[in-house]
Amino acid sequence: MRKIDSYPFYVEPFHVDLTGRMFLGILGNHLLNAAGRHSQSRGWGIGALNETRHTWVLSRLSIELEEMPRQYEQGTIETWVESVMKLFTNRNFAILRQDGTPYGYARSVWAMIDMETRRPSDLLTLYDGDILNYVVSEEENHCPIAGHGRFRFREPQLVRTIPTYYSDVDINGHINSIKYIEHILDLFPIECFRDQRLQRFEIAYKAESYLGDSLSFYTQEVDANETDIEVRKGVTDTSEGEVVCQAKVRFI
Amino acid sequence: MRKIDSYPFYVEPFHVDLTGRMFLGILGNHLLNAAGRHSQSRGWGIGALNETRHTWVLSRLSIELEEMPRQYEQGTIETWVESVMKLFTNRNFAILRQDGTPYGYARSVWAMIDMETRRPSDLLTLYDGDILNYVVSEEENHCPIAGHGRFRFREPQLVRTIPTYYSDVDINGHINSIKYIEHILDLFPIECFRDQRLQRFEIAYKAESYLGDSLSFYTQEVDANETDIEVRKGVTDTSEGEVVCQAKVRFI
Repeated sequence: MRKIDSYPFYVEPFHVDLTGRMFLGILGNHLLNAAGRHSQSRGWGIGALNETRHTWVLSRLSIELEEMPRQYEQGTIETWVESVMKLFTNRNFAILRQDGTPYGYARSVWAMIDMETRRPSDLLTLYDGDILNYVVSEEENHCPIAGHGRFRFREPQLVRTIPTYYSDVDINGHINSIKYIEHILDLFPIECFRDQRLQRFEIAYKAESYLGDSLSFYTQEVDANETDIEVRKGVTDTSEGEVVCQAKVRFI
Repeated sequence: MRKIDSYPFYVEPFHVDLTGRMFLGILGNHLLNAAGRHSQSRGWGIGALNETRHTWVLSRLSIELEEMPRQYEQGTIETWVESVMKLFTNRNFAILRQDGTPYGYARSVWAMIDMETRRPSDLLTLYDGDILNYVVSEEENHCPIAGHGRFRFREPQLVRTIPTYYSDVDINGHINSIKYIEHILDLFPIECFRDQRLQRFEIAYKAESYLGDSLSFYTQEVDANETDIEVRKGVTDTSEGEVVCQAKVRFI
């Protein structure tokens, strides 16, 4: 079996924003689907894993784009495993036009957890370390975007608190990974999308939140183009709550 | 060219709710895509129409389901034109399992408007009335669900007011048809989805709303299983606002 898989996508009318470009959350969904199908077809996907009480958990996702695909365009997503450590694996993506040129790239970090203990599993030994057979070297395929950055929150400002509802929640009862992306981008004024473009988006998932949790969004300007966001749950007058995820958004 | 088209769908992991069933908004999106592709391939789709300054506007959508498709299932959506009047056309859908048995059906009503004047066009003469060549009789294909119902709001209660953001808006700057469905279902307690199932959903689109509009949701219980919802924009202490859409939701 080859190491790199390729999945087609098509930009549907209801999947584009007011500029006619695909919503980042939709692209994120395509990436996660590609990751799921790539691992599924090699025997260590969610379905296979559930039988042995393991599941993949997304820890980091960074997307950087030269251009966002537009309505009615078709492209492909390539995905491959860049490296495997004991507790984490790095998976990369290329988001390609039909002529093979890149719209952009993405990097992600995943852990595999035991569904009962919620503790991470050893990827180097699970399934006899089969995932190691699929590691793609830099020479075989290259992901040219920067690695995941660091967040240094000093005095982030609370800008919005929202309730969570039915449509935020996935099959596990967690607020779904894509919905955080939507809620974070909804913090920005429309001019960012209309007059600039989203060039890079990073997110680090720290803890699960659940249906009914209130999510509080804190922002901190890094520079004129870049903003860090921290999402916390359970913030009250007397509690700073718990960090659910952190994100970095760059418009240029 | 045949009258009835058929489009495959697949239930992706991020497209299911906490019960593992497809979100209704996702199904709605599949239906509208099927409608778009059916008309597109016959020369009266959005792309073709934009050239002559016309566009389709969805007026009504009613979906009734015996069962909602579940995660990883594959199915097909059949769509066809049931009838054409001067200012409206009725389009039906069958949502089918792989073995051809129905998950459910849907009905919709569309108008075609002149994009400049925003006034409806005469469907019987536009494109030489070509759409009439594709009308499917009851004998050819049958949509067994009830037609669109009536709303009789007496004393609906205001239950929620929400702002609208970037991710609510489509390429025309309007709050997108699918987002209303999500926001309406978010009004219901989780028990409705977990302990019952959504058996029928109807929506009537009355006016456009725009990025930044506040949407106020009013509900009125019809009986133990059925609730009517009215969505208004621009509600203030001194104004009842304008009706944007009305919906009927039945859980059994």
